[in-house]
Amino acid sequence: MKLTRAFWQTYKETPSDAEIPSHQLMMRAGLIHKVGAGLYTYLPMGYRTIRKIEQIVREEMDRANCQELLMPMVTPGELWQESGRWDKMGALMLTFKDKGERDLCLSPTNEETVTDVFRKTIKSYKDLPVTLYQINTKFRDEIRPRFGLMRGREFTMKDAYSFHMDKPCLDQVYADLYRAYENCFRRMGLEFTVVEADGGAMASADSQTHEFQVVADSGEDQIIYCAETGYAANIEKARTKRADFKPLMTQAPMKEIATPDRKTIEDVCTYLKTEQAHSLKSLVYKAITGQVEKTVLVLLLGDDSLNEIKLSAYLKADHLAPLADHELTKAGFLKGFIGPHGLTQKDLVVIYDQAVAMDSAFVVGANKTDLHFENFIPNRDASYKDQADLRLAKEGDLTIEGSKKVSVRRGIEVGHIFQLGDKYTKALSVKILDKNGKQAVPLMGCYGIGITRVAAAAIEQNHDEKGIIWPASIAPYHVYFALIGKDPEILAFADKIYQELQEQKIEVVFDDRNVGPGFKFKDADLLGLPLQLVLGERDFKEDGMLEIRERKSGLVHKIKPEEASAKIKSLLASL
Amino acid sequence: MKLTRAFWQTYKETPSDAEIPSHQLMMRAGLIHKVGAGLYTYLPMGYRTIRKIEQIVREEMDRANCQELLMPMVTPGELWQESGRWDKMGALMLTFKDKGERDLCLSPTNEETVTDVFRKTIKSYKDLPVTLYQINTKFRDEIRPRFGLMRGREFTMKDAYSFHMDKPCLDQVYADLYRAYENCFRRMGLEFTVVEADGGAMASADSQTHEFQVVADSGEDQIIYCAETGYAANIEKARTKRADFKPLMTQAPMKEIATPDRKTIEDVCTYLKTEQAHSLKSLVYKAITGQVEKTVLVLLLGDDSLNEIKLSAYLKADHLAPLADHELTKAGFLKGFIGPHGLTQKDLVVIYDQAVAMDSAFVVGANKTDLHFENFIPNRDASYKDQADLRLAKEGDLTIEGSKKVSVRRGIEVGHIFQLGDKYTKALSVKILDKNGKQAVPLMGCYGIGITRVAAAAIEQNHDEKGIIWPASIAPYHVYFALIGKDPEILAFADKIYQELQEQKIEVVFDDRNVGPGFKFKDADLLGLPLQLVLGERDFKEDGMLEIRERKSGLVHKIKPEEASAKIKSLLASL
Repeated sequence: MKLTRAFWQTYKETPSDAEIPSHQLMMRAGLIHKVGAGLYTYLPMGYRTIRKIEQIVREEMDRANCQELLMPMVTPGELWQESGRWDKMGALMLTFKDKGERDLCLSPTNEETVTDVFRKTIKSYKDLPVTLYQINTKFRDEIRPRFGLMRGREFTMKDAYSFHMDKPCLDQVYADLYRAYENCFRRMGLEFTVVEADGGAMASADSQTHEFQVVADSGEDQIIYCAETGYAANIEKARTKRADFKPLMTQAPMKEIATPDRKTIEDVCTYLKTEQAHSLKSLVYKAITGQVEKTVLVLLLGDDSLNEIKLSAYLKADHLAPLADHELTKAGFLKGFIGPHGLTQKDLVVIYDQAVAMDSAFVVGANKTDLHFENFIPNRDASYKDQADLRLAKEGDLTIEGSKKVSVRRGIEVGHIFQLGDKYTKALSVKILDKNGKQAVPLMGCYGIGITRVAAAAIEQNHDEKGIIWPASIAPYHVYFALIGKDPEILAFADKIYQELQEQKIEVVFDDRNVGPGFKFKDADLLGLPLQLVLGERDFKEDGMLEIRERKSGLVHKIKPEEASAKIKSLLASL
Repeated sequence: MKLTRAFWQTYKETPSDAEIPSHQLMMRAGLIHKVGAGLYTYLPMGYRTIRKIEQIVREEMDRANCQELLMPMVTPGELWQESGRWDKMGALMLTFKDKGERDLCLSPTNEETVTDVFRKTIKSYKDLPVTLYQINTKFRDEIRPRFGLMRGREFTMKDAYSFHMDKPCLDQVYADLYRAYENCFRRMGLEFTVVEADGGAMASADSQTHEFQVVADSGEDQIIYCAETGYAANIEKARTKRADFKPLMTQAPMKEIATPDRKTIEDVCTYLKTEQAHSLKSLVYKAITGQVEKTVLVLLLGDDSLNEIKLSAYLKADHLAPLADHELTKAGFLKGFIGPHGLTQKDLVVIYDQAVAMDSAFVVGANKTDLHFENFIPNRDASYKDQADLRLAKEGDLTIEGSKKVSVRRGIEVGHIFQLGDKYTKALSVKILDKNGKQAVPLMGCYGIGITRVAAAAIEQNHDEKGIIWPASIAPYHVYFALIGKDPEILAFADKIYQELQEQKIEVVFDDRNVGPGFKFKDADLLGLPLQLVLGERDFKEDGMLEIRERKSGLVHKIKPEEASAKIKSLLASL
């Protein structure tokens, strides 16, 4: 592509609404254009990357025996009503009526549609397993879309759905897709971690789910990672042990102690000269399950945090929320002085985190204004003693098995695989004849990759202050060929090189524009193609050499013109 | 693809809502699945054809120097309000509000979006011409969607938009795209005609527009076609001469004649023993232009029909409609006896079709109950004598130049190219610096191909009573390989052939299902891949030969197993 003919424009200014590097760089490098809130046009230069990501995913899905189809983006409400999700999808699903007053929606996901075509097509166990996938546009009506392609409203997803007669078969295909996903992200040149994820309250205990996270400092997800054992889990799901808790063993009686106006763990512990881990943090939640609402007091070591997802799963709650201040007051709690002893609330659920040593002594709130207890020993002084794993894993924790140190990384979720079980097949009454001639409900798995999100994540992981540093396999082009010079003879010579590179199937952008060298180098760095080929008129007249610069390492190679193709190919292969 | 592993199912029954062959055959052959009214999933077997069509179009567009991008399917109302189309698009555009109460729509077309990104990217004539295209999902909210992919609500389009400083440049790119379109449909193996189309009331006189019509008996468009000169035009636009009119020359005076209860041309002419061409058909229309409403009497030769589009263009009308019965009465017309003589309406516009010989004598209505005139000679007896080309071209007409016979074909519009001029660039205030440093409004062209519609049109053109007959380049696969036999040895041998064909990059469906030969042959014919390779156990044991059957011609070739790949390749190349 000659830049004099390309629909491409770079920008010096960063748009004010672009908060993260990928959004800023995609706008500045002329890869995307904002059409409306969360709505982007993928410009020719950017769309090449999107299509390369699509193609890698397509090849790996095909190789894993998945079959490609395309479902409509607009789907009828009836299907969602049948599965019971029409009212549950919430505000993110954009619903509307057509001219015939029929309910429709812009699909944010396609379990219902695919299960419907499955039940109309497959009747016998002999035709299973089968995995169907599509690469399609999805829509999620974020009220405040932000971060460019990272959290747009309209975006491209690869979503796949597998069907099986039994769990071993689901496990087998799940493992195949796991490997296919690893292949995808490896081929895209991304550093990623596969983490155990949370399956949600509905998931059965043995159903697996994993997230594929691109490692990046700006990632919104936290990953607990053990370099020694390879353990990796989303912090929401991670199970670890505390590393450093030393119990305070004493037989001294519990006693009230004045803590005037000290309402936070930090204030109280500083005031009492106690380690935070020797106090208990008291948190009050309401948990709704079906029609039942419960009030729950959670007790954690003073320097730990609650993992709400673990609490929700433990309580099997549909909805969980901390009590707001006015609710605390109404429920008879004294904010800042709440504790496990001397409570008068009826039907209160009290749970200690597993890390709380029940024979150790702690400072706790006394449920009286400006008072705490010292030497509260749960096993001795508490009436409720239930324990569960409720704390949020953190840096410095140990793995459950092996007691190896874990650390926290940040990541961007680009893929998610999930064993759905019979949730949708049951809801849509799918029946398949099994080996014994009986009707059985098949199991499902679902497997997503955020195609457009991958492009943004790749930039979050691979950029510097000058611009993008594309991995070769998903770069819009391989080579940015900059001609520095205006002489007609050198222009003709450059054109010849450009033609040769194209004939060698090297994807090359030829900067033949009539602008200065500084401008060209800045654009080359901003766009971030893996290699820059520079034909400088002055240098070339002296030594007959061109330069190849590696965008990532900055390494420079001097080459003769006739070596260009071969050198570029070998460098690309090594990247 | 082995059919035992394929997500594919054929159906004996034709769904009751499928009225045309392509809809029936796509459903029966398991290519599409209906999700809702006008909403279809393209199943794996059908999606392969769609993607092949996309790929041919993409290659030809790239070759014509067009650049691919992708615009969002959901676009903000603001852009449409700016162009003035928000209120004009009518019921076919599905509009709705998002959770933030912003106006949005599902784009049926993208002139606004592309013009917006153009005006933000291109500032100088040096960067023109440029042509941008996308292959994307579109939505049109038909109240009664029908005909499967022929007139679905959600469908795939290739839409392209070109930008130019002047008309010669637009003409040049238009000609390039014209050729690219010819290449596309030729490569798809379709018989097609390029016809002059109607540009609508807004088009300037020199703006070209052409439709690409796939020739098919079931087509909803009529094409006027001259085999000798190559002239082709949509009947709406076609200009021809009548072939066979013989004037009735007489000096006899006009006289009233009783025609009791004879109200149609046919009845009157039969009753009076007159040729229909020697009577005049009187049609009354109302035409609205801006705030002005006019009543118009049109006079045509008795056996001609009115081309409303020509009348509308002649009157420069925004809206045109025949007067309903009650409106006729109200306006003082006597239905069945309307004529050009003795009219009392004020401000009536009277126009004769160009084919009416003004010195010839005609039978016309007398504007009195049960009465007509004989020997009405317009030049002698009429007060208004305006003439214009208003008749609908028909079979047997002659070309304007050359007087060669034309015939009527039916076609399916699959492509449309259109010189838009400055309609959208003006509406969206696009300004480009021209060679003289002045701001100028660029011109646009737009170019569409209905990707999913092409698949349906290909079937309308290529099928028989047994099923589809795919052109090779867009068939889901090239070869349907049917094994007839159950012996494990022959199955292993068939599997070896299947592997070899795949290694030779021949796209093959291997029917390894445990069903009878009749079932396999029926499915093979229904699916309509160009070649069928048959390995019959019994025959093979006798003579060691396989059969290749050509789906279209029915020709059968006996071959040795080791010749299969080479023979298939040579047959495919010849198809």
